[in-house]
Amino acid sequence: MAMYIVYRRLSAGPTTSQLVNSLRYATCWRSYSTSFREERDTFGPINVPTDKLWGAQTQRSLQNFEIGGERERMPEPIIRAFGVLKKCAAKVNMEYGLDPTIGKAIMQAAQEVAEGKLNDHFPLVVWQTGSGTQSNMNANEVIANRAAEILRHKRGEKFVHPNDHVNRSQSSNDTFPTVMHIAAAMEINSRLIPKLKILHSTLHSKSIEFKDIVKIGRTHTQDATPLTLGQEFSGYTTQVKYGIDRVLCTLPRMYQLAQGGTAVGTGLNTTKGFDVKIAAAVADETNLPFVTAENKFEALAAHDAFVETSGALNTIATSLMKVANDIRLLGSGPRCGLGELILPENEPGSSIMPGKVNPTQCEALTMVCAQVMGNHVSITVGGSNGHFELNVFKPMIASALLHSLRLLGDASASSEKNCVRGIQANRERISKLLHESLMLVTSLNPKIGYDNAAAVAKKAHKEGRTLKEAALKLGVLTSEEFDTLVVPEKMIGPSD
Amino acid sequence: MAMYIVYRRLSAGPTTSQLVNSLRYATCWRSYSTSFREERDTFGPINVPTDKLWGAQTQRSLQNFEIGGERERMPEPIIRAFGVLKKCAAKVNMEYGLDPTIGKAIMQAAQEVAEGKLNDHFPLVVWQTGSGTQSNMNANEVIANRAAEILRHKRGEKFVHPNDHVNRSQSSNDTFPTVMHIAAAMEINSRLIPKLKILHSTLHSKSIEFKDIVKIGRTHTQDATPLTLGQEFSGYTTQVKYGIDRVLCTLPRMYQLAQGGTAVGTGLNTTKGFDVKIAAAVADETNLPFVTAENKFEALAAHDAFVETSGALNTIATSLMKVANDIRLLGSGPRCGLGELILPENEPGSSIMPGKVNPTQCEALTMVCAQVMGNHVSITVGGSNGHFELNVFKPMIASALLHSLRLLGDASASSEKNCVRGIQANRERISKLLHESLMLVTSLNPKIGYDNAAAVAKKAHKEGRTLKEAALKLGVLTSEEFDTLVVPEKMIGPSD
Amino acid sequence: MAMYIVYRRLSAGPTTSQLVNSLRYATCWRSYSTSFREERDTFGPINVPTDKLWGAQTQRSLQNFEIGGERERMPEPIIRAFGVLKKCAAKVNMEYGLDPTIGKAIMQAAQEVAEGKLNDHFPLVVWQTGSGTQSNMNANEVIANRAAEILRHKRGEKFVHPNDHVNRSQSSNDTFPTVMHIAAAMEINSRLIPKLKILHSTLHSKSIEFKDIVKIGRTHTQDATPLTLGQEFSGYTTQVKYGIDRVLCTLPRMYQLAQGGTAVGTGLNTTKGFDVKIAAAVADETNLPFVTAENKFEALAAHDAFVETSGALNTIATSLMKVANDIRLLGSGPRCGLGELILPENEPGSSIMPGKVNPTQCEALTMVCAQVMGNHVSITVGGSNGHFELNVFKPMIASALLHSLRLLGDASASSEKNCVRGIQANRERISKLLHESLMLVTSLNPKIGYDNAAAVAKKAHKEGRTLKEAALKLGVLTSEEFDTLVVPEKMIGPSD
Amino acid sequence: MAMYIVYRRLSAGPTTSQLVNSLRYATCWRSYSTSFREERDTFGPINVPTDKLWGAQTQRSLQNFEIGGERERMPEPIIRAFGVLKKCAAKVNMEYGLDPTIGKAIMQAAQEVAEGKLNDHFPLVVWQTGSGTQSNMNANEVIANRAAEILRHKRGEKFVHPNDHVNRSQSSNDTFPTVMHIAAAMEINSRLIPKLKILHSTLHSKSIEFKDIVKIGRTHTQDATPLTLGQEFSGYTTQVKYGIDRVLCTLPRMYQLAQGGTAVGTGLNTTKGFDVKIAAAVADETNLPFVTAENKFEALAAHDAFVETSGALNTIATSLMKVANDIRLLGSGPRCGLGELILPENEPGSSIMPGKVNPTQCEALTMVCAQVMGNHVSITVGGSNGHFELNVFKPMIASALLHSLRLLGDASASSEKNCVRGIQANRERISKLLHESLMLVTSLNPKIGYDNAAAVAKKAHKEGRTLKEAALKLGVLTSEEFDTLVVPEKMIGPSD
Repeated sequence: MAMYIVYRRLSAGPTTSQLVNSLRYATCWRSYSTSFREERDTFGPINVPTDKLWGAQTQRSLQNFEIGGERERMPEPIIRAFGVLKKCAAKVNMEYGLDPTIGKAIMQAAQEVAEGKLNDHFPLVVWQTGSGTQSNMNANEVIANRAAEILRHKRGEKFVHPNDHVNRSQSSNDTFPTVMHIAAAMEINSRLIPKLKILHSTLHSKSIEFKDIVKIGRTHTQDATPLTLGQEFSGYTTQVKYGIDRVLCTLPRMYQLAQGGTAVGTGLNTTKGFDVKIAAAVADETNLPFVTAENKFEALAAHDAFVETSGALNTIATSLMKVANDIRLLGSGPRCGLGELILPENEPGSSIMPGKVNPTQCEALTMVCAQVMGNHVSITVGGSNGHFELNVFKPMIASALLHSLRLLGDASASSEKNCVRGIQANRERISKLLHESLMLVTSLNPKIGYDNAAAVAKKAHKEGRTLKEAALKLGVLTSEEFDTLVVPEKMIGPSD
Repeated sequence: MAMYIVYRRLSAGPTTSQLVNSLRYATCWRSYSTSFREERDTFGPINVPTDKLWGAQTQRSLQNFEIGGERERMPEPIIRAFGVLKKCAAKVNMEYGLDPTIGKAIMQAAQEVAEGKLNDHFPLVVWQTGSGTQSNMNANEVIANRAAEILRHKRGEKFVHPNDHVNRSQSSNDTFPTVMHIAAAMEINSRLIPKLKILHSTLHSKSIEFKDIVKIGRTHTQDATPLTLGQEFSGYTTQVKYGIDRVLCTLPRMYQLAQGGTAVGTGLNTTKGFDVKIAAAVADETNLPFVTAENKFEALAAHDAFVETSGALNTIATSLMKVANDIRLLGSGPRCGLGELILPENEPGSSIMPGKVNPTQCEALTMVCAQVMGNHVSITVGGSNGHFELNVFKPMIASALLHSLRLLGDASASSEKNCVRGIQANRERISKLLHESLMLVTSLNPKIGYDNAAAVAKKAHKEGRTLKEAALKLGVLTSEEFDTLVVPEKMIGPSD
Repeated sequence: MAMYIVYRRLSAGPTTSQLVNSLRYATCWRSYSTSFREERDTFGPINVPTDKLWGAQTQRSLQNFEIGGERERMPEPIIRAFGVLKKCAAKVNMEYGLDPTIGKAIMQAAQEVAEGKLNDHFPLVVWQTGSGTQSNMNANEVIANRAAEILRHKRGEKFVHPNDHVNRSQSSNDTFPTVMHIAAAMEINSRLIPKLKILHSTLHSKSIEFKDIVKIGRTHTQDATPLTLGQEFSGYTTQVKYGIDRVLCTLPRMYQLAQGGTAVGTGLNTTKGFDVKIAAAVADETNLPFVTAENKFEALAAHDAFVETSGALNTIATSLMKVANDIRLLGSGPRCGLGELILPENEPGSSIMPGKVNPTQCEALTMVCAQVMGNHVSITVGGSNGHFELNVFKPMIASALLHSLRLLGDASASSEKNCVRGIQANRERISKLLHESLMLVTSLNPKIGYDNAAAVAKKAHKEGRTLKEAALKLGVLTSEEFDTLVVPEKMIGPSD
Repeated sequence: MAMYIVYRRLSAGPTTSQLVNSLRYATCWRSYSTSFREERDTFGPINVPTDKLWGAQTQRSLQNFEIGGERERMPEPIIRAFGVLKKCAAKVNMEYGLDPTIGKAIMQAAQEVAEGKLNDHFPLVVWQTGSGTQSNMNANEVIANRAAEILRHKRGEKFVHPNDHVNRSQSSNDTFPTVMHIAAAMEINSRLIPKLKILHSTLHSKSIEFKDIVKIGRTHTQDATPLTLGQEFSGYTTQVKYGIDRVLCTLPRMYQLAQGGTAVGTGLNTTKGFDVKIAAAVADETNLPFVTAENKFEALAAHDAFVETSGALNTIATSLMKVANDIRLLGSGPRCGLGELILPENEPGSSIMPGKVNPTQCEALTMVCAQVMGNHVSITVGGSNGHFELNVFKPMIASALLHSLRLLGDASASSEKNCVRGIQANRERISKLLHESLMLVTSLNPKIGYDNAAAVAKKAHKEGRTLKEAALKLGVLTSEEFDTLVVPEKMIGPSD
C-alpha cells in the first residue's frame, strides 16, 4: 500500500487565493488520508485513499471534475435513494439467481447508504458526466467494498463486483433516473408537503382569527373597497392549498420508475418482469406508490416529470412571493408605512439604526422564491437538451429540483414558525385607515349611479373632506341615506 | 359632430423613421375616420371616431398608451371571451332586475362580440392598465353603444350605460380574470389539445410503422445498444401523451371563475348567488365545466392558475424541443450526417446552396418552444408581483399565455402535417450503422463479464476490427457462441 | 392567369371557432386577391396572388407555416433592414460586375422596401425556417419583381433574378444575421436610446426639483433614516443612466456584420473585399458605424451579440421594474397608503369604484419589464441551441429582441409623458411622516452608542412616545443635546 | 459558563428522516461544542458555543433561519471580502479618530478573515435577512472577539465592540453591497477570466492546428459547403474571446463601491471623504481599481451591476453550450455518429456498455451552462424586486452570481484540461465525408446558375450518384470544367 504526501495535482493557480484554496483542500484530505490502496477499472489501476470505500471510477471522476468544490457534492437525498435502490435490486436479483450470500451483504451495505451512514464515501460533485454514471459507480463501488468487508474480504479485491453484482441487471441510464424519482418523491412527501401543510394550517387559523376585522382593500396599490383581514388571509391560504394540490397533481408521473430500461430503455440484460418487481420493491421500501414506467424510452431520454414538478414549485414560489410581499408591506412602519400588521420581532434589524426590526422571514422566503424560479429555468433548459436515447443533464436537473424542494420546504417552515404564527393585527391602525377611505363611496353606486358617486369621491378628495360631507354638499342624498348605505361592515360580501 | 384632420397628437419623434410610422398610422386611421363624435366619462368629454363603437375611456387609453403599435392589441380570444361574459352577465342580471329590453339588446350586442364581428372596435393594446380595466370598459362601451343602436338610440347617449347596465354587478377586477380564464380554457380545448392529439396520433402511427426496424441506440450522443425505431418514436409519443395529461391536470383551477368577486373579492354590489349563476351561464354558453371560484380573493389577487398552466406548456415545449432536435439530427445529411430518417421536402432550403433541403418544420417548432419558455418566465414574473387585493399584470399574463397556447398548437399542427406525417425510415442506412456498432458487445456481459466485454470492444475499436474478430483474438468465446449471443434483434427487450 | 376562389387550403379544423378564423382570414385575403399568376422555383410552379410582388418561395412558406396568424409577421424593422442591405449589395455588386441597369433597378426597389412602402408584400411569419431563408427569399423575390417592373418587365418572368441578381454574392446565412444586426442597431439608436434619454432627463429634473424635500427613508420596507426626495430620485436617475451605458457597451459587437460570410462563413462565391465594402455601404446608408465581422463563422453560428444586448435590456427592465414599483408604492393612497407622491390622473381607474385613479403607467411599464425578462430567456435558449455552422433560431431571436426594444422604448416614453413628468411631491404628508419616525434616533449613535440609542427607540415604540420623551426618560442626554443632534435636515449627508 | 446537551431546539419533525438529520446535525456540532458562553445584543442574552468567535446576532440568525443546511452557507468569497473591507475600514477609521490599539487589532483580526482562517466562525446561510445584516454582524462579532483576544480580553465582553468599533461609520446597507462587489470582482479577476483565457488560448491553438483540414460544413444540421476544421474552431475561439470582453465591459460598474452610503445612501454618521478613502484602501488591498460609487442611493437600492454581470455570464453560458454541443456531436460515434473529432478518453463511460467512452467534459460544461442561465433568472428576479432605499435580495443575488462565476470558471478549466486540449481530428473520416457531399455543387452557381446547379444536386441525390456524374448526365458542363470548378480546397474563402 503506497504512501503519498500529495495525491492530487495542485492546479498551477495564478493567484494566491487559489493556492490557498488548494492547500486547504489538500490539507483537509490529508487529515483523513495519508495512505492509499490500488483500485482498478477498465482504464487500469489508480490510487484511492485507504480509508474510503470508493473505487477506481469514483477516484477518476474526483480528479477529472474539479468543479465547484465540496459544496457541489451530489445531494444527500440522491445518495440515500441509491441505497434504497441497490438494496431493492439485490433483493430482486436474488430471485433471478444472484448468490444469496452476496445478495444479502449488498442489501446490508445498501441499507447503510440509505441511512446516510456512508455519506462521507460519496465525494463526487454534481458537475460530472450528465448521466450520473459516476455517482452510480460510486454507489456500486462503495456498496461492493462494504459488502465485501461484511463478508470478510478486502476492499478493492472485487469479491463483490461493482458492475456484475451490485449493478446487476442495471445501467446508470436506468438507475440514475430511478434515484432521481425516488429522491424527489421522498423529499416531496417527507419535507415539502408537510411543511406547506403547516404553513397552510397557520394561515387558515389567521384567516379565522382575523375574520371580523374590517379593513381597507387595496387594488393597484390604491385604496379600494373594504374587506376583512380574514378574507385577505383566506386568499393566501387558498394559494398555499392549491400549491399543495399542484405538486400532488404531478406525482403520478414522478412515481414512474425507469428501472428495468437498462442502457437505452429496451431492458437488455434484464429478464421480463424485473422492472415491475423492482418498482414494487422500492414501493415497499419507501411506502410510496412507485410503479414501473409505462415507457422506458421516455423515462431515460427525457425528464419531463422533473420539468413538470419544477413547474409546480415555480407556481408555489410565485404564490409565496406574493404572500410574503403583502405581509411585509402590510407590516411596514412602524410609523411611516401601512402598519396594519405587527410582525414578530426576532432579532435586531440593523447594524446602524438602533431599534429597527425587519420582516426578515419574508426576505428569506422571497429570496428562496427567486432561487426556485431560476432553478426552474435551469431544469427547463436541461430538460429540453436531451439527445436521442439519453438526457445527459441528469445530475443538474436532480440537484436543482432537490435544491428547490429543500429551500421551499425549509423556508415555509421557518416563516411559519418565526413569522406567520406570530402575526398580530394592528386593530387601531386598521380602523383609522378604513374610516378615512374614499372608496366606501362604491356602496352608493346602486343608489345614485356611478357618475354621481364618482363626483362625490372626487369632491371629497379634492377638498380634503369626508365622503359624507361631499355627498351632502352635492345634494345627492340625505344624511340618513348616507349613514344607511355607507357601512363598511356591510360591504364585505354580496347582499342577500 | 366635429371634423378633425389629425385627432391624435403626433409624438414629436426625433427620427424620420418614427415620423414615417406616425404618419402611416395616422393615415391608416384617417382612411376610416374623418369625423368624430363626443363621448364622455367622469374625466369629461373626448372625441371618438364616428364610425367606432367605443367610448371615452377606450379613447383615453388609446392616447395614453402608445406602446408597441397594432401588433400588440389585446388578443382576440380575450375580446371574444368578453362577448361571452357580457352576454351571460346580462342574462343573469335580468333575473336580478335588469330591464329586459336593455338586457336583451346587451345580449345581442355581446353575441356579436363573441363571434368576432366587432373586433375592429377593440383597438387597445396589452400594455395598458394592469387590471385590464380599459379593455373591460372597451367591451362595456362597445356593447352599450351597439345595444343602444339595436334599440334605435344614438351612440354616446348612454341610453344603455356602459357601467350601470353592461357592467352591472361587475368590476374589471372580476371580469378581466374571468375572461382570462374563459379565453385560456377555450383555446386549450379548441386549439391546443386537438392539435396535440393529432401530433400524438401521428407519432403513435409512426412508432407502429417503424416497430420492426432495429437500429443503433445513442446515449451521450455515442453509439449504444440497439433499439427499434418504433421504440424510439414510442418515447416521443409518450412525451406528447403526457403533455396532454399535464395540461388537462391544470384545468380544474382554470375552470374557476372570479366573476362575482367584484372590486376586491368580497362580491360587494352583487347579490348572493350571482357568482354561481354566472359561472353556470358561462359553462352553458361554452360547453366547458366552469364553476365559480372557491375563493374570490385568490382569484383576483393572484394568477397562479395561469402560472401553473404555463408551467404545463413549458413542459410541453421542453418535450417538443427534444423530439424536434432528435428528428432533425436523425434526419441530418443527406450524406454527411446520421441520415437515419428521410424528412419531407417542402421547399428549397437555401438561397445559395442549390438542392439543399432543411428540417424547417423542426426549426419553426423549436423556435416556438424557446418562445414558450420565455413567455413562461414573463408569466412567472408577472404572477409573482401582485400587490394586495389585485394582481396588475393581467393583460401581459393573459397575452403571454394565449401566445404560447396559439404558437404551440399551430406549430404542432404544422409539424405534424408538413413533417412528422411524412417521415420515412432510411432502412439501408439504419442497417449499415447498426451492424458496424461496437455496443452490441453489451450482450456478452452475462456470458464473459463486464471487464472482458470491455476488452473486446476496446480492441475492436483500437484496431478497426469487428467485435467478432476481436472476441476470437482475445479467446474469450467461440465463433458459435458469439453468433448466438450477438443478435441485435434479440437485444431490444428483456429476455424471457 | 388563373382565377381561384380559395387559393389556400382551409385546414380541416375540428372546431367552429377555427373555421370562423380560417374563413375570416381567407376573406381578408380574398378582398385583395382574386386572381393569381404562376411563379416557380426549384420545386416547380405555384400560384401567387396577382397583386403581390412575392414569388414562389414566399408562397410556399405561407402555406407551410400556418403558425400564429398575421400578428406574428416578421417585424417591420427586419423588412426595412432587408431594403437597406439589398440596396447596398446591389451597389457593391455593380463594382464587381453586376449589370448596372439591373443593379440600379434593384437599388430603387430596395429603397422602397427600406422606406416601408412594400410592407404588404412581406406576409411571412417569424415561425418559419430558423435561418430566415424564406424572408430573405421574400425580399429577393419582391425586389426582383419590383425591379423588373421598373425595367418594364413582367412579374414572375425573372428578368431580374431573385437569386442570381438580388441575392448575388449572398446567402440567407449571411444576409439574415446582417439584417438582424442592422434592425437592432437602428432600433436601439433611433428608438430606445432617445426615449431612455428623455426618461433620464425628466427623472434628473425631478431629482433637482425635489432636492430640498427631506423625507423618511425606508429599508426592508421599514422606516429608516431620512434622505431627500431628490436623493431618492437621483437613484432612479442613475439606474436609467447606467442602463443607457449598458446598451451602448454592447454596440461594438452589434455593429459587426456577417455579410460576406455567405453559406457557412467562408465567403464562398464572394470576392475578397466584398465583406468590407458592403459593411461600409451599410454604414454609409444608415449613418451607424457598422464594420465587417471579425470572424464570420461566429457571426453565422451564434447570436451571442443578441444574447448580450438582450442582457442589457434585461438589466434595464430590472431597473425600471424597481423604479415603477417605488413610484406606485410612494404614490399609494390617496388616504390609506404612503401618499408621498401625487401621480397624474389620466383616466378613470375603476369600472366599479367611482373616483379611483390608478398608477396605470407604472403598470404598463412593469408589464413590459416582465415581458422583456421573458423574451431574454427565449433569446438565451435560442442562442444556446445553435448547431455547427448555423444557428437556426434566428427569426425568433430577432423578433424577441426587437419586441423588447420596442416595448421598452415605447413604455419609457409613455411613462415619462403621462406619469413621471407630472409627479408632484405631497409635501405635507412627507413632512408629517418624517417627524413621526423613530429612526431619527440613528443620529444619536456617535454620542450615546448603539445600545443606548436602541433602548431609546424601543422605549418610544413600545410606549407610543416621541424619541425625545423616551431619551429624556432614560436620561441618556439632555433636551438641548437631543435638539442639537436630531435634526433631519442634518442627517442627509456625511458630516464635515 | 453553562453546559448544554442540546443547545439547539430540535424541530418537532414529522418524519424519521428529519429526525435523523437533526440528530446528525446536533451530533456534528456537539463534537465541537459542549460548552457555551453568554453573549448579548439589544434583544438580550443568548448562549453561544464557547469555541466560536461569533456573538449574539449570529447565534440568533442560526436559530431563526434553519433553511437549507450547511451547504447553503454564505459563500467563502463573501466572508473573505468582509475581511478585506473591515481591515480597510479600521485603517480609515483610525484616520478619523478610532483608537489605534483597537484599530490595529481589528486590522489583524480582519486579515485572518480575509485569508480564510476563520471560515468556521461564519455559520450563517444565504437564506437570512435580505440585507445580509446578519452576515455583516457575524463579521463584526467575529472580528471584535478575535481583536479582543489579540488585546488579551475575553470573548463576549465587547472590549472591542462589534457595532461601535468594527462597524464604525458603516451600515450593513453599505457593507454588504460593498463585499458583494469586492467578492465578485475578485472572483472574476482571479478565477473566471484566467480560466476563460486558458480555454481561449487552447481553442485558438486548435484552430491553428486544424487550419488545413478541409471538412464538410453543416447548416440546419444538413450538409453544406466546406470549411476548414480550423475555421470551425476559430468561431468557438471568437465566442470565448468576446465572452471575456463582455465580462470586462461590465467591470466599471462592478468596481463602484457602496461603502460610505451607510443606512440609506446619504452617508449619515460618516465624515466627508470617508467613502473615497475607503474605496482607495480597498483598491490598494486588492490591486483592483475600485472607486466609490457615483450614486450611493442606486448602490444600495438596486443591484443592477450584478444583473448586468450575470447577463454577461449568461452570454458566456450560451456560447459554451453551443461549443460543447458541437464538440460532442462532431465527436459522436465512434462508428455510428459524425465521428470527425476524437475526444480524450478519461474514464469508462458506462456501467453496462463495456468500452464505451463519453464526452463527459462537454456534459459537465453544458450542465453548468444550464445552471448559470437559471441563476441569471434568479438574479434578475431578485434585482427587480427592491423596495425603496434597499434591495433585500442581496445574499441570494451574491450567492447566485458567485455560484455562476465559480462554476463557469471551474468547468472551463476542467473542459480545457480534460477535453479540448486533447481533441484530435479524425482526418480519414473528415475526408471521406467531404468528398461524398452534394453541397460542393454550390461552387457551380457562378458558372451555370442556381437553378441548374440545383438540378444537378437533386439528380445526384435522387439517383445516388456523384455530383460529377449528374452534371455530365445533365450536360450542364464538361468533365474538365467540373474538375476545375469543384475543388473543396478552393471553397473555403472568397475568390481573389
